[in-house]
Amino acid sequence: MLSFELQAECPETGARAGLLTTDHGTVETPMFQPVGTVGSVKGLAPRTLKGDLDVRILLGNTYHLALRPGREVLIEAGGLHEFMRWDRPILTDSGGFQAFSLGDLVKVTEDGIAFRSHLDGSRLFFSPEEVVDIQRDIGSDVMMVLDELTPATVDRAESRRANERTVRWAERAFDHYRATEPRYGHHQSLWPIVQGAVFPDVRRESARALVDLGAEGYAIGGLSVGEVAEQMYDTVEVVNEILPADRPRYLMGVGTPQNLIENVARGVDLFDCVMPTRNARTGSLFTTEGLVNIKNAKWKTHFGPVDPGLEVYHSQTFSRAYLRHLKIANEPLHVEISSVQNLALYLWTMRQMRAAIVEGRFPAWRAEWSERLAQKA
Amino acid sequence: MLSFELQAECPETGARAGLLTTDHGTVETPMFQPVGTVGSVKGLAPRTLKGDLDVRILLGNTYHLALRPGREVLIEAGGLHEFMRWDRPILTDSGGFQAFSLGDLVKVTEDGIAFRSHLDGSRLFFSPEEVVDIQRDIGSDVMMVLDELTPATVDRAESRRANERTVRWAERAFDHYRATEPRYGHHQSLWPIVQGAVFPDVRRESARALVDLGAEGYAIGGLSVGEVAEQMYDTVEVVNEILPADRPRYLMGVGTPQNLIENVARGVDLFDCVMPTRNARTGSLFTTEGLVNIKNAKWKTHFGPVDPGLEVYHSQTFSRAYLRHLKIANEPLHVEISSVQNLALYLWTMRQMRAAIVEGRFPAWRAEWSERLAQKA
Repeated sequence: MLSFELQAECPETGARAGLLTTDHGTVETPMFQPVGTVGSVKGLAPRTLKGDLDVRILLGNTYHLALRPGREVLIEAGGLHEFMRWDRPILTDSGGFQAFSLGDLVKVTEDGIAFRSHLDGSRLFFSPEEVVDIQRDIGSDVMMVLDELTPATVDRAESRRANERTVRWAERAFDHYRATEPRYGHHQSLWPIVQGAVFPDVRRESARALVDLGAEGYAIGGLSVGEVAEQMYDTVEVVNEILPADRPRYLMGVGTPQNLIENVARGVDLFDCVMPTRNARTGSLFTTEGLVNIKNAKWKTHFGPVDPGLEVYHSQTFSRAYLRHLKIANEPLHVEISSVQNLALYLWTMRQMRAAIVEGRFPAWRAEWSERLAQKA
Repeated sequence: MLSFELQAECPETGARAGLLTTDHGTVETPMFQPVGTVGSVKGLAPRTLKGDLDVRILLGNTYHLALRPGREVLIEAGGLHEFMRWDRPILTDSGGFQAFSLGDLVKVTEDGIAFRSHLDGSRLFFSPEEVVDIQRDIGSDVMMVLDELTPATVDRAESRRANERTVRWAERAFDHYRATEPRYGHHQSLWPIVQGAVFPDVRRESARALVDLGAEGYAIGGLSVGEVAEQMYDTVEVVNEILPADRPRYLMGVGTPQNLIENVARGVDLFDCVMPTRNARTGSLFTTEGLVNIKNAKWKTHFGPVDPGLEVYHSQTFSRAYLRHLKIANEPLHVEISSVQNLALYLWTMRQMRAAIVEGRFPAWRAEWSERLAQKA
């Protein structure tokens, strides 16, 4: 079973510390999930994720995994945990975001989402029921319902229409979920996704309808798609007033370290984002000293550690000068060092926040770090 | 100082087991050196090289390091060992091979080799003396003299002309070497390179002339450039009859596991080659079960380990099915797993040979494995 225990709440903000327990172990919240799109966090072995970073939960992408390695391989492997040798929790998204981002390759109808593969043009159809089945085959600990995303530029009427479909799809998904069993023995939780763009009334309608499903956890989707940060924060506030306090709240696809801090202050427990790993590959580092563009000439002979504030092998062992050299020479080792650095900074931020919440000093911590992590080093 | 102690010799073949000691530690021979062209073995952190593979000595490329990160950065870093965080021995080549492989970007005269950078067209001039100076700046434990390579198609007269220049350059390099000091305090050894293509008489002239230099070790260059394997083996035999038995012998740029075995049988102590790491990146694996093309559909649901015969995390933890998926999905983690696998197989081969030589059963080991490692799995 999945359980969520609240351990501490900030008296001044909405921040909270909890324990999310799955059959693959417990996740201290607030927590950030590294993204392992197609069965690996790009460039990092599981022992690095576990031993160096103490990652507690990973995210996989249902759409990408359905294409490669495909459901048959995953079933024969005994599920994604076995396949990628990861024995801690996995959460999978539903494909709704890929339907949003793949544009012309996608057609959305009341039945579901018709994809043409971005790889070879082959056809997939994601109904709300099918998406549960695929995630049963993957074996994720937390599954997401299929949803319909809208861009930040959507008008209220279109947002309402898409959200009402998302709610109908969630109801269909839960019916199917309750009629099916896990494939690999461990419990799989299904979470619905609140939509409604930046319209408070649509967001409220969405949240109220989904709460009626009595889910074990709730996701907030459709943010970080082009709206300004204040709109994101305001929307999260509106939604979290309605979502049940005793269930985990997952904000999908967000964001910068500052975004994490500000959303934790508004009651979010769980995050994922490609930003730390994607930016790592382009040489953009998040450090306890602020943002570092490792290609910048100022690091050419900077022989201090990549990040003196993080006690991780990669951050302590190598110099910024060496990492700059690796990036400029396009040596693949730069991916490992930079990805570990950025994920270490994200997880450090989550753990710092958690300790501050538990110890009743979250507002002071936030005041010190929220801006600081967003500045240039 | 550099020392070489012979510990055992095969009574039936030329194979020998020794200990090569540098100021950065001891190398059991026969040994293979992974190639770290521009300051990293592609995709592998030093702790992986040391902790997983127990790599004893690495190779760096003087030409590539002179371009990036450049001599100034290396000097300021305190040398390549410090820069890349590698505290075991490093051997560097001289740039002669790059002069051979960069074609139109290179002009060779009696003075030395004029390069135009393959990166930005900027000019470098490698004289025999300058190449010693650059390697002083790098701080390698074993430095190579500048040499002039010839292709496998060269005629005897041209081979003799190039070899005579190589000998003159070696004399100039040793004069300069003996007149200069190490930059970082540790001893740096300079080894000359026997040339002469596949002409036994030219090879003998080369070896005899270089032995007169009284070097601490000798390299055999100009092989694995297009000749057939038997010509390589015959040439190594000819040269090793002349090179002093009490000095280490390094065969440059060779080769497959079978090449290593056959050349160890002819008295070679040290190797380097890009093959294990380069082939890893294209999905060609060397395993104790033979050659594996990981992209092949036959591995799609092969959930056994990458190599059941190697006790290394990467080879034991992941399945061929998973590694195939990573390669096909172009996930960067495949580089780490495949590179560790291939280097582990190379180092396993060297250690198996060494144990067999010490225990007096090298011919039997060679008979069992030389063909076997070259077959398809």
